[in-house]
Amino acid sequence: MPQVSVGILGATGMVGQQFIALLADHPWFTVDYLGASERSAGKQFREAAAWRLPSRLPEEVANRVVETAAPGRAPKLVFSGLDSSVAGEIEAAFARAGHIVVSNSRNYRMFDTVPLLIPDVNADHLRLLDAQAAALGWSGRIVTNPNCAAIVIALALAPLRQFGLRSALVTTLQAISGAGYPGVPSWDILGNVIPHIGGGEEEKIETETRKILGSLGQGRIEDHPVRLSATTTRVPVQNGHTASVSVGLEQRPPPEAIIDAWITFKGRPQEMALPSAPPQPLVYLGEQNRPQPLLDASRDGGMGISIGRLRPCPLADYKFVALGHNTIRGAAGTAILNAELMHREGLL
Amino acid sequence: MPQVSVGILGATGMVGQQFIALLADHPWFTVDYLGASERSAGKQFREAAAWRLPSRLPEEVANRVVETAAPGRAPKLVFSGLDSSVAGEIEAAFARAGHIVVSNSRNYRMFDTVPLLIPDVNADHLRLLDAQAAALGWSGRIVTNPNCAAIVIALALAPLRQFGLRSALVTTLQAISGAGYPGVPSWDILGNVIPHIGGGEEEKIETETRKILGSLGQGRIEDHPVRLSATTTRVPVQNGHTASVSVGLEQRPPPEAIIDAWITFKGRPQEMALPSAPPQPLVYLGEQNRPQPLLDASRDGGMGISIGRLRPCPLADYKFVALGHNTIRGAAGTAILNAELMHREGLL
Amino acid sequence: MPQVSVGILGATGMVGQQFIALLADHPWFTVDYLGASERSAGKQFREAAAWRLPSRLPEEVANRVVETAAPGRAPKLVFSGLDSSVAGEIEAAFARAGHIVVSNSRNYRMFDTVPLLIPDVNADHLRLLDAQAAALGWSGRIVTNPNCAAIVIALALAPLRQFGLRSALVTTLQAISGAGYPGVPSWDILGNVIPHIGGGEEEKIETETRKILGSLGQGRIEDHPVRLSATTTRVPVQNGHTASVSVGLEQRPPPEAIIDAWITFKGRPQEMALPSAPPQPLVYLGEQNRPQPLLDASRDGGMGISIGRLRPCPLADYKFVALGHNTIRGAAGTAILNAELMHREGLL
Amino acid sequence: MPQVSVGILGATGMVGQQFIALLADHPWFTVDYLGASERSAGKQFREAAAWRLPSRLPEEVANRVVETAAPGRAPKLVFSGLDSSVAGEIEAAFARAGHIVVSNSRNYRMFDTVPLLIPDVNADHLRLLDAQAAALGWSGRIVTNPNCAAIVIALALAPLRQFGLRSALVTTLQAISGAGYPGVPSWDILGNVIPHIGGGEEEKIETETRKILGSLGQGRIEDHPVRLSATTTRVPVQNGHTASVSVGLEQRPPPEAIIDAWITFKGRPQEMALPSAPPQPLVYLGEQNRPQPLLDASRDGGMGISIGRLRPCPLADYKFVALGHNTIRGAAGTAILNAELMHREGLL
Repeated sequence: MPQVSVGILGATGMVGQQFIALLADHPWFTVDYLGASERSAGKQFREAAAWRLPSRLPEEVANRVVETAAPGRAPKLVFSGLDSSVAGEIEAAFARAGHIVVSNSRNYRMFDTVPLLIPDVNADHLRLLDAQAAALGWSGRIVTNPNCAAIVIALALAPLRQFGLRSALVTTLQAISGAGYPGVPSWDILGNVIPHIGGGEEEKIETETRKILGSLGQGRIEDHPVRLSATTTRVPVQNGHTASVSVGLEQRPPPEAIIDAWITFKGRPQEMALPSAPPQPLVYLGEQNRPQPLLDASRDGGMGISIGRLRPCPLADYKFVALGHNTIRGAAGTAILNAELMHREGLL
Repeated sequence: MPQVSVGILGATGMVGQQFIALLADHPWFTVDYLGASERSAGKQFREAAAWRLPSRLPEEVANRVVETAAPGRAPKLVFSGLDSSVAGEIEAAFARAGHIVVSNSRNYRMFDTVPLLIPDVNADHLRLLDAQAAALGWSGRIVTNPNCAAIVIALALAPLRQFGLRSALVTTLQAISGAGYPGVPSWDILGNVIPHIGGGEEEKIETETRKILGSLGQGRIEDHPVRLSATTTRVPVQNGHTASVSVGLEQRPPPEAIIDAWITFKGRPQEMALPSAPPQPLVYLGEQNRPQPLLDASRDGGMGISIGRLRPCPLADYKFVALGHNTIRGAAGTAILNAELMHREGLL
Repeated sequence: MPQVSVGILGATGMVGQQFIALLADHPWFTVDYLGASERSAGKQFREAAAWRLPSRLPEEVANRVVETAAPGRAPKLVFSGLDSSVAGEIEAAFARAGHIVVSNSRNYRMFDTVPLLIPDVNADHLRLLDAQAAALGWSGRIVTNPNCAAIVIALALAPLRQFGLRSALVTTLQAISGAGYPGVPSWDILGNVIPHIGGGEEEKIETETRKILGSLGQGRIEDHPVRLSATTTRVPVQNGHTASVSVGLEQRPPPEAIIDAWITFKGRPQEMALPSAPPQPLVYLGEQNRPQPLLDASRDGGMGISIGRLRPCPLADYKFVALGHNTIRGAAGTAILNAELMHREGLL
Repeated sequence: MPQVSVGILGATGMVGQQFIALLADHPWFTVDYLGASERSAGKQFREAAAWRLPSRLPEEVANRVVETAAPGRAPKLVFSGLDSSVAGEIEAAFARAGHIVVSNSRNYRMFDTVPLLIPDVNADHLRLLDAQAAALGWSGRIVTNPNCAAIVIALALAPLRQFGLRSALVTTLQAISGAGYPGVPSWDILGNVIPHIGGGEEEKIETETRKILGSLGQGRIEDHPVRLSATTTRVPVQNGHTASVSVGLEQRPPPEAIIDAWITFKGRPQEMALPSAPPQPLVYLGEQNRPQPLLDASRDGGMGISIGRLRPCPLADYKFVALGHNTIRGAAGTAILNAELMHREGLL
């Protein structure tokens, strides 16, 4: 199969580096363009940015010259890990110029005609793209993936819709990698908990999840009626967002039915066997002290969500703990899955 | 004022060492007896146990010979930091022999005639002691303090009773010192979260809190009707349990009224100006990223509870974050406050 | 090629689990026997021990019944991750019964006829085995790998012998996984440094390194004359031992010659292309803030040693920093490399 | 005694906050001036900077308006915790304007007529000030304290000069607070070691220590002839720099003589009983796993240095481990001690 040439916007940042790492041996996509700020432009990647991941920086990326993130020389498909302070303008410029922008940034997530995709959950939302050109006047398209914590929560909640999902009260314990680089100062987090995450993290969880779980009707998304309440905290963990969740369900199925709904849950990525798709998006762990970031976040290359501790909640109906890798499943990995889906759907 | 001689049961353990540290310069109590297991008995304290706290081990305690924890040579008042595997038997033996046992262990907490005391909250529960001798056949008495996480939560909830406190859904992020020593292996917790705490931690929070907040009637405690749901997690923090709390209130007061209820909350220890009483049991922090264990757990010598982030909860009525020092306010410090209260009440 | 059946002694411990993880997809060796203490015997592995590694526990190992570690039903080749308190007796029993024991334990390392092997460095020391039977009266054999810190140091020093290596003064910063499980209590190490490692760690580095770097003459090892001084510390790092090293060299080569000696260093595992051999045992990193445990310890599957910061030492001749993965290259990985070498040499 | 009015330059930074904390209840000095960058000027301190220390921010400092750090309205005595990028110019401006600048910055440390003071070690170096005005043309004066790691090392080495101190080979394990705020990104240091500290840390240790230990002759310092070699590393520790040290001594005293030299070491601060002086600058700990940052860095209010593990070094003569609190003894605390000494010497 011919390789698809791709670019990365915001290539030097934390998410950009994760894109590079995950695309290193990708069967379909080849990184042919690195876009970043003017400060980095003109330098080889290895000089423009310190490589901050344990995996090896591919030699051909290391040597590639970083360009100013602007349409012109970039491939049609670009992944965006741009900081939200600049993503709005730059992504629009690329979309206007005819690019397919698969973005991890928050700027366009809640736009009516922009899919907020987790392909395992709402692949059909891609059909929003039909209306996007008309609405936004772009010849290209923007597709987004949700906030890193919202992805974990939405994936865990998706199979519960069949039981009449009414509410979800969530407290998260989020990893430092979610804050990018330099991100959280070590003085603030070493041996500490910060009970707040800036940039509207709690609101993102509360609003994005409803759109993700919503249904496509008449060219727009009908939000799922689930009511959400989130408290987000930062903990001294490298990778892996943990969520303590209490859910209200209209029906009250036995626990076995819930676990079964989780472990049998499958979506388009599994049907299509997309390269980045985990065989089973949700794994249930029976041990009472799991899931744990160190042991479980990297399951299936960081694309598997781990759930555990399902038990009745004295206030809601059930409570459980969910965990996912925030920079892979919660960011670059889901973005790549989005592009894989679009490629297979003939949308590239 | 003549000094009161006191003993410490379980003196070599984590809570025992915290007792020693807090009593080092106590204006009323002098440590004259150290009880521990047979393995330690007969050795000077400095040889029986490595001192694991940053504060200095007092020389006279260091040189004192540890004895087998058994009544006989101990002062009338003994503090117990015994492991629950042995506390049941040993504390009963002391109570039977006429001692006042002020215990941090869980074994007798839920007994009908045993006060489960946080003096700032329920000093009147001491009157349960009148019935204790008859019920349990002891010439001495046992008074207990609650579980370390329950203390933080109960203190934060106590002033909310006036608003018709109906429910509290809690997720905790608990420090490693709560697990004693050697406690949590570093391999399990360094850079990790363990979403479970053994020994029935969640149930303790759910049941003890109702007793603490309950009212004394007819020689027994009527549990407070608040419904609780707790998920407890362990995080890589040295000291300080954080709780993310959503509360249901029958009345729905404005936030200012809630904050006012917290910061004006006072109990007997404040009225009596007991030596270990913080001037204000509950402090409200207006910064949106507080309270934090590293910055706030040691407020007022570790006896002050810090609360922050009060805001409406889309599911319950309000949500907030509370924090307290788990081995001081959550254990030895409250036990000492219990003894101070009893001393001033003439119950020693 | 027919698979070689192997057993693991001490299978439930930290090193035992690392053996299981590394052998999961091994091209030659198949785990057919799990030996542990009587407490575990008779149980399936999944019940006998909590799996503590991020990699997946292979299903067939999970289901395998653990046996008491005693010769009888074990394959000829057994890997030992036994605790040193029991390794002496059990390994001797296996050797006496004709097994090839490839051990990570310290008990026999300094025996005259027991090879202390790092195959990249001293593969020829295997010839000691000729004399082992006569000396120790065993029909089987014991081969050992060095202490985890000594492996890192010896590998970094090996190529410097050509420059007249006279002395090495070392301070290590060692990961907690080196202490096994439960190992270091989190209370002792979270946000802390412990400037001491028990069990004679410093002496092991000082004595084992001289044997490893020594030369084989007349059926015995002549220790290398390098003089060593080690200070060992424990730091809150999951995996990866770092060593700050100052070396005295009789010749004083330019830095380029030293770096060249490191990066061109190769041994039998590389010549034979053994399955666990890294292509290049020693990698030199030019960035001034490397090597780092998080970024570099897992290089080449944890088998590559990373070196950096070579510069003149005002007191010795040169100083540098070396790093290796302590439970892979420093333990199970080198043991497996030992067995691979023996297999290819026809010694199994 | 009348209070001495003092100012703090760089008041919002990490060292500035440490000055504020340590001066909160100072018997002689009252903070009447806070100087910082223009960005902070005009705001109350509480708005200009987040308070990042566990100790309480004094109310009167919280409410004080920060001014641009420039001479004019500041008290005669100013403490400087300015960043070295601006300290050179600003401190000179204050000195020129007649202020006594007691600085923690590195800019003037190695100037011939600027004392590099640890009052316990080289109080007599204050006499350099006689020549400072002539040399630098200032009506005021600048006095500096050494680099945080150099202070720990110099204090531990000072009593060894009597044994013919020839060499010291040092590897440090330094706390993150030494890097200021925001300082080290958590992504770089959580569960990690960085074997390098920027800004010439190693060179500072190697050069400053010789000046500190040097002797005053003819109006200038004769460097001590000790030869030093330092490797500096950053470890995930909040406070407390640990140093592994090997020393060469011309005489080879028995270990008891060395320990005795340490524990009996006293200087002018002890003779004068200065408010910030620890009763004993150096404490020797007999336990083999001490000193440790968590347990020992805060000894005597963070002003005491802890030493342990003295033993023969196979390469140098002796080796040991030393530890001190890097932002107290290693920075603001020693600066305050410098000012106390000058006050008592009548130099303010």
